[in-house]
Amino acid sequence: MSQNSLRPSELPNLTIERLGENTFVSPLKGGTRRFVDDSEKILVYSISDKVKDCMDKTGEVPSFERAGPREKIYFNPAKLNCGIVTCGGLCPGLNDVIRTITLCLIWQYGVRKVYGFRYGYAGLSSNAFEEPMLLTPEVVDNIHLRGGSILSSSRGPQKPDDMIDQLVKRDVKLLFAIGGDGTLKGASALTETIKKRGLKISVVGIPKTIDNDIIGVEQSFGFSTAVDAARSAICGAHEEAKGAWNGVGLVKLMGRDSGFIAANATLANSDVNFCFVPEVPLILEGENGFLRQLEKRLDRKHHAVIVIAEGVEPAEYEQNEKKKDASGNVIRKDVGPLLKRKIKEYFQKIGKPLSLKYIDPSYIIRSVPANSHDSAFCLALGQYAVHAGMSGRTNMVVGYWNQYFTHVPIALATMKRKKIALQGFLWQMVLGTTGQECREKIKESRK
Amino acid sequence: MSQNSLRPSELPNLTIERLGENTFVSPLKGGTRRFVDDSEKILVYSISDKVKDCMDKTGEVPSFERAGPREKIYFNPAKLNCGIVTCGGLCPGLNDVIRTITLCLIWQYGVRKVYGFRYGYAGLSSNAFEEPMLLTPEVVDNIHLRGGSILSSSRGPQKPDDMIDQLVKRDVKLLFAIGGDGTLKGASALTETIKKRGLKISVVGIPKTIDNDIIGVEQSFGFSTAVDAARSAICGAHEEAKGAWNGVGLVKLMGRDSGFIAANATLANSDVNFCFVPEVPLILEGENGFLRQLEKRLDRKHHAVIVIAEGVEPAEYEQNEKKKDASGNVIRKDVGPLLKRKIKEYFQKIGKPLSLKYIDPSYIIRSVPANSHDSAFCLALGQYAVHAGMSGRTNMVVGYWNQYFTHVPIALATMKRKKIALQGFLWQMVLGTTGQECREKIKESRK
Amino acid sequence: MSQNSLRPSELPNLTIERLGENTFVSPLKGGTRRFVDDSEKILVYSISDKVKDCMDKTGEVPSFERAGPREKIYFNPAKLNCGIVTCGGLCPGLNDVIRTITLCLIWQYGVRKVYGFRYGYAGLSSNAFEEPMLLTPEVVDNIHLRGGSILSSSRGPQKPDDMIDQLVKRDVKLLFAIGGDGTLKGASALTETIKKRGLKISVVGIPKTIDNDIIGVEQSFGFSTAVDAARSAICGAHEEAKGAWNGVGLVKLMGRDSGFIAANATLANSDVNFCFVPEVPLILEGENGFLRQLEKRLDRKHHAVIVIAEGVEPAEYEQNEKKKDASGNVIRKDVGPLLKRKIKEYFQKIGKPLSLKYIDPSYIIRSVPANSHDSAFCLALGQYAVHAGMSGRTNMVVGYWNQYFTHVPIALATMKRKKIALQGFLWQMVLGTTGQECREKIKESRK
Amino acid sequence: MSQNSLRPSELPNLTIERLGENTFVSPLKGGTRRFVDDSEKILVYSISDKVKDCMDKTGEVPSFERAGPREKIYFNPAKLNCGIVTCGGLCPGLNDVIRTITLCLIWQYGVRKVYGFRYGYAGLSSNAFEEPMLLTPEVVDNIHLRGGSILSSSRGPQKPDDMIDQLVKRDVKLLFAIGGDGTLKGASALTETIKKRGLKISVVGIPKTIDNDIIGVEQSFGFSTAVDAARSAICGAHEEAKGAWNGVGLVKLMGRDSGFIAANATLANSDVNFCFVPEVPLILEGENGFLRQLEKRLDRKHHAVIVIAEGVEPAEYEQNEKKKDASGNVIRKDVGPLLKRKIKEYFQKIGKPLSLKYIDPSYIIRSVPANSHDSAFCLALGQYAVHAGMSGRTNMVVGYWNQYFTHVPIALATMKRKKIALQGFLWQMVLGTTGQECREKIKESRK
Repeated sequence: MSQNSLRPSELPNLTIERLGENTFVSPLKGGTRRFVDDSEKILVYSISDKVKDCMDKTGEVPSFERAGPREKIYFNPAKLNCGIVTCGGLCPGLNDVIRTITLCLIWQYGVRKVYGFRYGYAGLSSNAFEEPMLLTPEVVDNIHLRGGSILSSSRGPQKPDDMIDQLVKRDVKLLFAIGGDGTLKGASALTETIKKRGLKISVVGIPKTIDNDIIGVEQSFGFSTAVDAARSAICGAHEEAKGAWNGVGLVKLMGRDSGFIAANATLANSDVNFCFVPEVPLILEGENGFLRQLEKRLDRKHHAVIVIAEGVEPAEYEQNEKKKDASGNVIRKDVGPLLKRKIKEYFQKIGKPLSLKYIDPSYIIRSVPANSHDSAFCLALGQYAVHAGMSGRTNMVVGYWNQYFTHVPIALATMKRKKIALQGFLWQMVLGTTGQECREKIKESRK
Repeated sequence: MSQNSLRPSELPNLTIERLGENTFVSPLKGGTRRFVDDSEKILVYSISDKVKDCMDKTGEVPSFERAGPREKIYFNPAKLNCGIVTCGGLCPGLNDVIRTITLCLIWQYGVRKVYGFRYGYAGLSSNAFEEPMLLTPEVVDNIHLRGGSILSSSRGPQKPDDMIDQLVKRDVKLLFAIGGDGTLKGASALTETIKKRGLKISVVGIPKTIDNDIIGVEQSFGFSTAVDAARSAICGAHEEAKGAWNGVGLVKLMGRDSGFIAANATLANSDVNFCFVPEVPLILEGENGFLRQLEKRLDRKHHAVIVIAEGVEPAEYEQNEKKKDASGNVIRKDVGPLLKRKIKEYFQKIGKPLSLKYIDPSYIIRSVPANSHDSAFCLALGQYAVHAGMSGRTNMVVGYWNQYFTHVPIALATMKRKKIALQGFLWQMVLGTTGQECREKIKESRK
Repeated sequence: MSQNSLRPSELPNLTIERLGENTFVSPLKGGTRRFVDDSEKILVYSISDKVKDCMDKTGEVPSFERAGPREKIYFNPAKLNCGIVTCGGLCPGLNDVIRTITLCLIWQYGVRKVYGFRYGYAGLSSNAFEEPMLLTPEVVDNIHLRGGSILSSSRGPQKPDDMIDQLVKRDVKLLFAIGGDGTLKGASALTETIKKRGLKISVVGIPKTIDNDIIGVEQSFGFSTAVDAARSAICGAHEEAKGAWNGVGLVKLMGRDSGFIAANATLANSDVNFCFVPEVPLILEGENGFLRQLEKRLDRKHHAVIVIAEGVEPAEYEQNEKKKDASGNVIRKDVGPLLKRKIKEYFQKIGKPLSLKYIDPSYIIRSVPANSHDSAFCLALGQYAVHAGMSGRTNMVVGYWNQYFTHVPIALATMKRKKIALQGFLWQMVLGTTGQECREKIKESRK
Repeated sequence: MSQNSLRPSELPNLTIERLGENTFVSPLKGGTRRFVDDSEKILVYSISDKVKDCMDKTGEVPSFERAGPREKIYFNPAKLNCGIVTCGGLCPGLNDVIRTITLCLIWQYGVRKVYGFRYGYAGLSSNAFEEPMLLTPEVVDNIHLRGGSILSSSRGPQKPDDMIDQLVKRDVKLLFAIGGDGTLKGASALTETIKKRGLKISVVGIPKTIDNDIIGVEQSFGFSTAVDAARSAICGAHEEAKGAWNGVGLVKLMGRDSGFIAANATLANSDVNFCFVPEVPLILEGENGFLRQLEKRLDRKHHAVIVIAEGVEPAEYEQNEKKKDASGNVIRKDVGPLLKRKIKEYFQKIGKPLSLKYIDPSYIIRSVPANSHDSAFCLALGQYAVHAGMSGRTNMVVGYWNQYFTHVPIALATMKRKKIALQGFLWQMVLGTTGQECREKIKESRK
């Protein structure tokens, strides 16, 4: 889809699951609040050819349900208990989302109770480290000023039946799960079991991935803040590189499967000379390999800045064992120190001086408070998640797409990871800006 | 369109003017650079109903030309002189745009010369304060670290014929005009005269409006940075408000015709209690008027934060004379001090204590360097403007729309100002977050 | 004294008042904590001549008592209730001081209760707006992340007897008063009345003045943060000035009686061309007057940055009436708009273009959270205030002097305002950096 | 001396070397500039006992020469060429110092030329990588906005005779060397050889040590900025620690021999639970050892933040080989990863969960631009270095001491490293704030 196309034929059913008929009048009714009708849809494709094609073939264009408050809602707020849980690694904006969900539930809908389950899905299990917190306007008042998550987090799934028992025990009928790919798959499994057990509990996800790699969602919260913070680290690498003869600043950034942070931070800081992402094979050796290119760059300018996403695997690099962490992510050998070593060895071999500084800002980036874009964006995501949940929707996440907030089935969001399209404008701009492929060529043509 | 709909029937012709056939092979050719085909189009509407409607009626959907490098270009880079001019008030990112246009022209295309005309259109006239600067990679190296514009700026138009004479004198065939509504209208007038004189000079605009009020463009550069900076000011207002009994923090933000900065900054800082924008009439007096509402808020909480866009005109406020500044913008009486006075008078009258702090951060916001989003965005806008200009396009601006960069006719961009749609999600969220309309009501319903 | 000399003969008695004998063993005893002996003294003068002089004449050198934990203390922590109050305008670091006093009293000494009186001295009166808050480690946990004061503030004194009645009612025997000149005078009056009534209540001040104008104290908390924030405003003024032909950025900064913020911000941002402080008469008119100097600067460079402290009074400017605010500070006409008007009139008269941008960042500066220097400094001040109070000292403030924390009698701190010494290095560097006096001259001498 | 006492008997001769009689009238003469007399002295000790002692024994108190412009100067500015060199690792403020020295030499004194030698002392050798830059007001205009050093740097000494030949070749008679311990020793060696060769070349140092470990100097430039930046990293570590069950944030900070950054950043961020500095032995094992203490902390609170300076060596940790880097600093094994491993092993052994996040922000800290304190401080240091050099002083550095700028012989500055006094207020406050020794005890005493 658009920058990252799934073909129309690949798209899963985009209809959103619902618990039942909406019978309660929304307490938002009255005043100038505007309700969204279930029939409002947002186009998946914004390129005219694809859209005409779909129309010609099927008379229909694939589209997302539009997010927003509904005039009638499923749950009776006065009797509703809700829960919030945050899973996986830290990401800027978690507290903003917790806060806005809590305030929207309490101030706008007037629900009975909001529980904050502690330490990820573990807090929903019968073996929880700690009892859930009661979230009130007082408790969440200033939490958006801090990074991290006041609910804390953990990795890995829990047994659906056990979690459901805990929800039932506390009469929680609406659960907000904030997390990435693994968390959303867990949320989906939870809804399956809920259905099997004939319960009416809604599970709404807010996609959290600092890597911005959730499909069907233009941008995930925290990403903009992460790029801000990454830019500072690159800026430091640039100064360090210029500070020494044949100085090299090497920055490893987040990006397990997708290089969005690396690419955007490269564009936000036009001093990067080489940007490596998981989507593009990294060739180290040979005349066109990176090491020889770096040598040529240093011969010419005597300093260089390199950005590499953590998920890059050098082509020459054998990796037999594929261990996984508790969230099911493959544990790779750390490419940062590896590249550092390879560069040092190369320059030692060719007998040229080198002053390499290696920067790994990972946790510094993950833990900062949200910037203003992400704060406002989290506010929206949280409110739309509440509106979706109050209307009885389940097994979905809230997204943003082509200028509207949308409902996205978890099935689409977890189908595969979003990746940088190498023909798309983002990567093309990285190439144009770093000149990592073509500068030599163009300079020749100027002679 | 979408959040801010023009009806399909209102849309002007979206075809982009071109100087002639593209006969030169782009120096970008080779490697993995991907060219955009002239046939690629981006849908104006992303709401499915509107699109189906258009298809049913005309078999066509209104769409923008997609921006990007073309395989064949109009100008011969080796013989091309270019010019850049910045007009109107300061806006974060101006130096980023100047830098990226310069570097893209020189490094990617290898043009002959890039002139930076000083002090706005005045620098293009025969009465220029100063000669144009020669822009080189060395000159623009670090300029993006600073706010402002190294070319400086001025307001107001100049005679098209005089400006064209200056361009001809320096053999400038491609001019980049960075500015707002007035500047773009000036650019359009320039292209008209160029055509009349039978010249082949291209004029490409980069829309600059800190207010984000250019139509046909999702977001303008500098806006994100402005919201960041505005959030800080509001944060200060909040502390000042809480610091005193019946403390009020009143912040005036930019927004001559449209309240996007005020609205977004309100969402980015969830401590705002009243947000006033030019799109909504401000009623001061009466039981439902703002002054009475403020009194009730203070009785309840003893502090309040108010954000007002500069373009708001209180309904009760007579304004006979409508003077205009050099850019043709109506000069209004300053609403900030007016509101301050009205509030003070009201509380004096009702005999309740009040401690009001007034904050006007205007120039502090306009002059900061671009944040990382805007830096990357400016990089893209600048590069796409260069690609458009090199391909002989003229009388257009570069935009961003539904996940693609686009070419937008100046005729559309200057048709009218983009405004907050009161039924759209932005304003609805402001209402939901400040509770400026409905909190009372909801609290009642909770009893 | 040093940069701001009181002559030795002017110094008041530097002995600190005490409530009585210290009979309790400090709970800090044990481990590697080091206690300060009452005999340790810090020299007032660090210039060798003055010191020799004093030694020759009296065999003594004037010195401050050194601050620090004492091995024996006056109060029994287990039975002690304490109070904290913040008065006057906001200043970065207030919450840091509140937090550290609370934590030091509770964690290090184990006192019974800490009350936070709300809204300044008004909260200590029988007419308090609100009951005092109970300050606990939980309550103060994150408050240092915010600007402002969680206790809020107010201006003006209250009747000592009434305040003492409230203290007695709550059994508060140790009160920390955080405030400026007026607040400290109030604290002194309070101790006088306490003595008269034969009570054993200690009042310890932490001098709060964003202007850094408390005598006997090298630097006051919040000042460093204020200079940081002022620098940003000046930076914006510089960009605005350069953005237009004959552009002038005019920034009004805090500094009622003393120009320390203006002078330091000028040094921290080397783009200021004219810096005006209350200590130096500002001559507007005449060949050597500021207006003519500004004209010459603009003729030469076409932009200028001016910083003016709020307390400056142009020599030509008649001011008959001297109103005072609730804190007893003289209310002056606002010099910022005055200067703006004078400059505009002058350039209109001489018929030269001018583009003036006026920036008044006052409340934005006052309300930011403390920077890292001020956070650490507040931590120290708060802890030393606690140590002083626990040892029964009263009618004093905590200071920092010649690399040590000190006890300073309120009599000295409120004797008069600290001012910039025109012969001292600060002002001399301002002259050397702005060149506001001598640049012309030096350039001539280079010919 | 004061916080870090050398006994009076240990002090070297504090007289500053001079090239000869000052015969030229300073071009600063005239206007209101105030000159400093050679007889003005600043006391080394500010504690009254030490001062009285000295007076009683010798009638003299040890004191530094006061820095400042002299009425008569040694060099004829019109004929003087100067040079600047930056050596060792990056430190915030280097560009500020380069800029202010250049501007002061050119604008205030009107010297002939200012050379910027590239890449440290290597740039002063006959094998320099690059020719020196000519430093002009245009070249240094905006450099203070960037971190790093526009002159770049390198480690290690060069042959004095070779360097002097290069100075003579370019007729440079005044050299400013910005660097740490090794650089200053190099500068001292240079002055020895200059004397031997009967030349009249002055070498003035500006002490650069991000660790703040130069003796005889209250604070070195860049240190305040480094603490700012370190605070951000610690803040992130705190969020990461709270984000997981038994979460530990471990931050390694600069501090090869002295823990000033670690200690100050700990005070600036009151969330640190353990702070380790080179001055205090770190015991890992045993009931009172750190690992057991950490276990107890996690049992109680389930998260912990640890700060460790790079120079700490665990007592149990054998280190046979002592390699040195090019600057002569001992290369130690990296204590950060070591501690990380020890903690992980311990918790594995005792079978308790642990989620440790390791943060090493070193280069991110070193490369940021100076904060406003350091910018103003660098301005002063640079100007005073120029005044000292113009007056023919040599073999000295500029310092700040007891509220005055001073001249410090290199012999004192390089005598040994300044260290945290464990009885001084800095370390005592670290203990009081982290509670790393005594919290248990106090809590017991509260029962």
